[in-house]
Amino acid sequence: MKKDQTVNLKYAVVIALLGFMLFSGTAKAQKASWIWYPGDYEVWLSNKMQNRRTERGTFLPPFWKLDSHYVLMNFHKDFELAEPEDAKLYVEGQHNISLDGTTIRGYPKTIHIPAGKHRISLKVYNQANVPAIFVQGRHLVSDTSWLVTCEDKEWIDASGKTSDVSATKYLMAGSWGFNDPVVLPSTYHLPVEPKKAVSIDEKPHHMFVDFGKETFGYIKLNGIKGKGKVSLYFGESPNEATDTARCELADKVDIDQRSGDYTFNGSRAFRYVSIYYDDNISINDVSMLYEYSPVKQRGSFRCSDEEVNKIWDVAAYTLHLNTREFFIDGIKRDRWVWSGDAYQSYLMNYYLFFDSPTVTHTLLALRGKDPVTSHINTIMDYTFYWFLGINDYYQYTGDKTFIQQNYPRMQSMMDFCLSRRDKDGFVQGQTGDWVFIDWADGLSKQGEVSFEQILLCRSLETMAECAKLAHDSTRAVKYAQIAAYLKAKIFSYYWNDQKHALVHSRIDGKPTDNVTRYANMFSIFFNYLDEAKKQDVKKYVLLNNDVPKITTPYMRFYELEALCAMGEQSYVLKQMKDYWGGMLKLGATSFWEEYNPAKSGADVYAMYGRPYGKSLCHAWGASPIYLLGKYYLGVKPTSPGYKEYIVEPNLGSLQWMQGSIPTPNGDIRVYASTKVIKVSADDGVGTLRFKSKTKPVCKQANIVSKDDNVYELQIQKGQNLVVDYNAM
Amino acid sequence: MKKDQTVNLKYAVVIALLGFMLFSGTAKAQKASWIWYPGDYEVWLSNKMQNRRTERGTFLPPFWKLDSHYVLMNFHKDFELAEPEDAKLYVEGQHNISLDGTTIRGYPKTIHIPAGKHRISLKVYNQANVPAIFVQGRHLVSDTSWLVTCEDKEWIDASGKTSDVSATKYLMAGSWGFNDPVVLPSTYHLPVEPKKAVSIDEKPHHMFVDFGKETFGYIKLNGIKGKGKVSLYFGESPNEATDTARCELADKVDIDQRSGDYTFNGSRAFRYVSIYYDDNISINDVSMLYEYSPVKQRGSFRCSDEEVNKIWDVAAYTLHLNTREFFIDGIKRDRWVWSGDAYQSYLMNYYLFFDSPTVTHTLLALRGKDPVTSHINTIMDYTFYWFLGINDYYQYTGDKTFIQQNYPRMQSMMDFCLSRRDKDGFVQGQTGDWVFIDWADGLSKQGEVSFEQILLCRSLETMAECAKLAHDSTRAVKYAQIAAYLKAKIFSYYWNDQKHALVHSRIDGKPTDNVTRYANMFSIFFNYLDEAKKQDVKKYVLLNNDVPKITTPYMRFYELEALCAMGEQSYVLKQMKDYWGGMLKLGATSFWEEYNPAKSGADVYAMYGRPYGKSLCHAWGASPIYLLGKYYLGVKPTSPGYKEYIVEPNLGSLQWMQGSIPTPNGDIRVYASTKVIKVSADDGVGTLRFKSKTKPVCKQANIVSKDDNVYELQIQKGQNLVVDYNAM
Repeated sequence: MKKDQTVNLKYAVVIALLGFMLFSGTAKAQKASWIWYPGDYEVWLSNKMQNRRTERGTFLPPFWKLDSHYVLMNFHKDFELAEPEDAKLYVEGQHNISLDGTTIRGYPKTIHIPAGKHRISLKVYNQANVPAIFVQGRHLVSDTSWLVTCEDKEWIDASGKTSDVSATKYLMAGSWGFNDPVVLPSTYHLPVEPKKAVSIDEKPHHMFVDFGKETFGYIKLNGIKGKGKVSLYFGESPNEATDTARCELADKVDIDQRSGDYTFNGSRAFRYVSIYYDDNISINDVSMLYEYSPVKQRGSFRCSDEEVNKIWDVAAYTLHLNTREFFIDGIKRDRWVWSGDAYQSYLMNYYLFFDSPTVTHTLLALRGKDPVTSHINTIMDYTFYWFLGINDYYQYTGDKTFIQQNYPRMQSMMDFCLSRRDKDGFVQGQTGDWVFIDWADGLSKQGEVSFEQILLCRSLETMAECAKLAHDSTRAVKYAQIAAYLKAKIFSYYWNDQKHALVHSRIDGKPTDNVTRYANMFSIFFNYLDEAKKQDVKKYVLLNNDVPKITTPYMRFYELEALCAMGEQSYVLKQMKDYWGGMLKLGATSFWEEYNPAKSGADVYAMYGRPYGKSLCHAWGASPIYLLGKYYLGVKPTSPGYKEYIVEPNLGSLQWMQGSIPTPNGDIRVYASTKVIKVSADDGVGTLRFKSKTKPVCKQANIVSKDDNVYELQIQKGQNLVVDYNAM
Repeated sequence: MKKDQTVNLKYAVVIALLGFMLFSGTAKAQKASWIWYPGDYEVWLSNKMQNRRTERGTFLPPFWKLDSHYVLMNFHKDFELAEPEDAKLYVEGQHNISLDGTTIRGYPKTIHIPAGKHRISLKVYNQANVPAIFVQGRHLVSDTSWLVTCEDKEWIDASGKTSDVSATKYLMAGSWGFNDPVVLPSTYHLPVEPKKAVSIDEKPHHMFVDFGKETFGYIKLNGIKGKGKVSLYFGESPNEATDTARCELADKVDIDQRSGDYTFNGSRAFRYVSIYYDDNISINDVSMLYEYSPVKQRGSFRCSDEEVNKIWDVAAYTLHLNTREFFIDGIKRDRWVWSGDAYQSYLMNYYLFFDSPTVTHTLLALRGKDPVTSHINTIMDYTFYWFLGINDYYQYTGDKTFIQQNYPRMQSMMDFCLSRRDKDGFVQGQTGDWVFIDWADGLSKQGEVSFEQILLCRSLETMAECAKLAHDSTRAVKYAQIAAYLKAKIFSYYWNDQKHALVHSRIDGKPTDNVTRYANMFSIFFNYLDEAKKQDVKKYVLLNNDVPKITTPYMRFYELEALCAMGEQSYVLKQMKDYWGGMLKLGATSFWEEYNPAKSGADVYAMYGRPYGKSLCHAWGASPIYLLGKYYLGVKPTSPGYKEYIVEPNLGSLQWMQGSIPTPNGDIRVYASTKVIKVSADDGVGTLRFKSKTKPVCKQANIVSKDDNVYELQIQKGQNLVVDYNAM
């Protein structure tokens, strides 16, 4: 017994020691991730994703140029070790390794590194996939502090000496935080989870399956046996799924199995599926693997109006479905990354997920590589939204590194835009440029469209800011000057005093007298108008039924934003209930690409000349998330990354509302009724601004009185502020 | 018997009919080949090839940026059929097909095309390999008449209508003439054939194998059995193969087999192989699979001097070994495509293989894609050789289409060069630019090197010519102006009357008084010098032993060319015998990267600080092919593609010589002794020019007397001209 005890004690010591070692190892060891050239994985993965589109089983790729990753990459890191260590190496591609300039022979899986200062370099070639590495030492780990280049230009002379003047341009490595060394980045896919059908209507050799709401993933036939064909006809509406000849998505497969399940290869968007199968086939049950992005829903919204709550929920679900490897336009089609669509997703994202990686991944995928041979997605306005997206990204996240790393690609993109200006300094659609603006019947795209100039102007202002962040002061000044010059010109050329508005375009150097909403509404929230012009635009354009109406959620986003920016929250709430509520009344479980309340019946599903061409789950349908967060709860950053912010609640006609707004560090929580406002925040310094008929009271902070019954107080992190007031 | 006969007769009829059908099919059917975006296959395959380099089993990739193919490609062809036909389709990549704008569902292997006018389009996505198609109908076949684009920019509006203004830039498809639909371009490799060793020296667990001469391919161990390690140590010299610790190429493999042969994966350059294997292993025999480019040796040369004949043969073998998928520098290392090295291969090729595809493939591989971020191979002079190579290619082949298709990439490459001029309009090495010139001890690369300006000037002249061919008359004028301005400046800044030569460089705006051979010799065959200056350069530079000597065959190429261009064939012949003959005397079976007659012993193999660093089979070693063809047989085109040409035989000190010079259409055959010249040609109109002490006689053509005992006559195709003369 005594002996055994001793042994046990020894074991215990050993185990404790091991535990200590493991623990201290875990505590001290850095977190390694797969790294690559920044932007390359985005280009590669977006190629893969965007080429998944099919129409009834036929491949349907994008019509713009797709770029590629750099096939040969040089990774390096200068570091110092206090103690020697072994580092494990994992590489996607053919590679070599050198330590302190000396190549290590062969393809070692572990290298020993002595204590001291070192430089480790890996060169990796991979034509098919992105060259990537994963290095796991105790202290030396692959992460975004590594430097990468696609051309090191390090030649040697006849004596074997390396050139002593390096012109290598390094960037910091890109990463998606893939932390498992044995799961290669090229095998990445979104997670899936099984979901059951809500109802299955069975007939001989046929099933009609309803999953209860719009969804996305892989159809699974459970307990299928026999030999023969199985055909799937998908529908976002029952009409579509039953119209086997004309539904947009269909798959067919040859089955030959005794028993078991069969999961289809291709992911599809649907609520309904019609399944037809041959005589010899039997199927027990139908389910699906729901595929989704693992982003976390951080934002929330609840209010006194249940229809608005429902709108917010369906909008959140719509955005989640369209948030995939990147922000896409719609899950049925195109499943492509469209800059104008993504721009709205970025903004909604700041009020729902605050998932910065999906924003930067999408921005990088959209930009691709030099040379620029076309506008982004071929669309002029979509190039400008790309710049605007970067501007917002910096405002919301404060991520200066992204701007600095990305700045050269911003510059070459802007060079492309500036090189296409006409003699008046305006842009107009050249051959091959798609001037999109919006889906609207009869909308002119000819000549110098004011809307495009407004977007270019804002893009130039963005460039001026980003040039400063990238320490390019010369160009910062240049961009600001061009922007100022352009802005002055826009108002001198397009503003029509009789119309009290910017006109739509100039053709052959002459302004038309056509007034549309686009340039006018953007001018409001870009703050390009003085107060008098703002009121003019509100009256003569936004609230004027004679100006052609907008029939896409896409442009309603901006129209309602402009109205909110002018304090028209009550009017906008009614619009929101009419428009998004209108879709809900038609049975929508996600919001649509286009909705025209004037249409009814089967007509509501048609678009692009096809009976089910319209996407019933389109990211740009989800804008209430943004409007409710930014203009009702009233939260927005006033300095980059929410270091400072404002909370300006506006109930519209609601009795109360409450919600949470995500920020880079924690959340901002707001409750507002007509009597009380409660605010708390995890970080930053905020200003709560509100109107009150009577003098408000707050025990936790000093309220400062401003003009016109406007009051302000400062929000410090961690405080729970309660303000008693009398809403106006 | 009768019955049998009848049957036989029937069979005969059927066979004859089949034969007729096959024949008429063959006669009428067009030849299909795999097609792709021009230049893309070259970029892709050169990536693959250049990343095959290893040093003792460790991967050693290039240090410049590697580009990629376009991953999404649109192929189309407008055509008309008199009768309906079925066309077979083969595709590398995910794809769709449309006929007359209508997508054909699924992935058909054959499509039926009615009679009439049509447009067929295929869109192909392939990230890993080059998107490629093979279409085989009776009349409709994939070939270089198809149009391709990487961005069709063909969007549709909300009604489904395609944009009516296309900005698509089409190029004609690229092809390597791969005619087998089931052999995919991505699987292409050079042919191999088995070769036996010349001697095998066997010792226990060791073999020392000699293949008799420099060679390239895969080592094959015949009848190997047992379990254990086999190590190969390669050598271009016996010294290298026996120095197992320091030889440049080595491979190791684990064997575990009962019997059979084992062929190594990696292709290597060698003459000798040391093989070491474990106790448990036994090997019957060692052989190799010789890998080669299937180019045809069309040029020939024989003369009264056997050493010169040997030099020509070894040069031809050297060039053949280095003519692979592309023209490479050397077969041991780097196996990369280097522009300056390839430039000489192009010129030699015109006198040996006249294989135009290998030239255009190499030019396209070198250029890669936009944006230009570096000189070609990082070397400034190598960028200029790329332009010069295009100039020569057009002169020798007359292939205008290549110039026109390639012109945009020439333009952006030249934009890069021009953007890097200093305030005096000269180029100097900027950070990251390698100013190579030559391997020569102590050669200055600082400041504005005259040699680089001379090459830039010639490149600009090339651009001016190519701009004309591409119908870009504005830039044709611009390039010619810059060239003229630069040329005048070169001579005003670098020509030193005291030195009777161009000086090597200007540093800080001041010419040095250092004279080197480079700029001077190029000025001669570029015809940049007046007669007085030519004679100056000959006397004070080329034939002046105080000017540092050239020790690479690379620059000896140009030095001897300059002397030949001035009629110094006798002197050059002696030099050739000394220099290339010197390598033969050291046992060379192929010509070297560098040869310094002053070195001896093991020293001759060293370079780059490594004992066997030097390549003993280097393309630039093969220049006698070019010199003997162009300056002895004296054949060169005087208008593009040999439509007109000159034959100006110069025996040097030879008694007689004869040879055949390949042209785009057939050959030009020349025989010359001191008494008679015989010439015949398959195409074009030539001028035979020669000197004679006495009045020459030719029965077939009129001889015209020129100044200074120079005579000329015209060579018509198909004629066998015989001229009796009295050589001077």
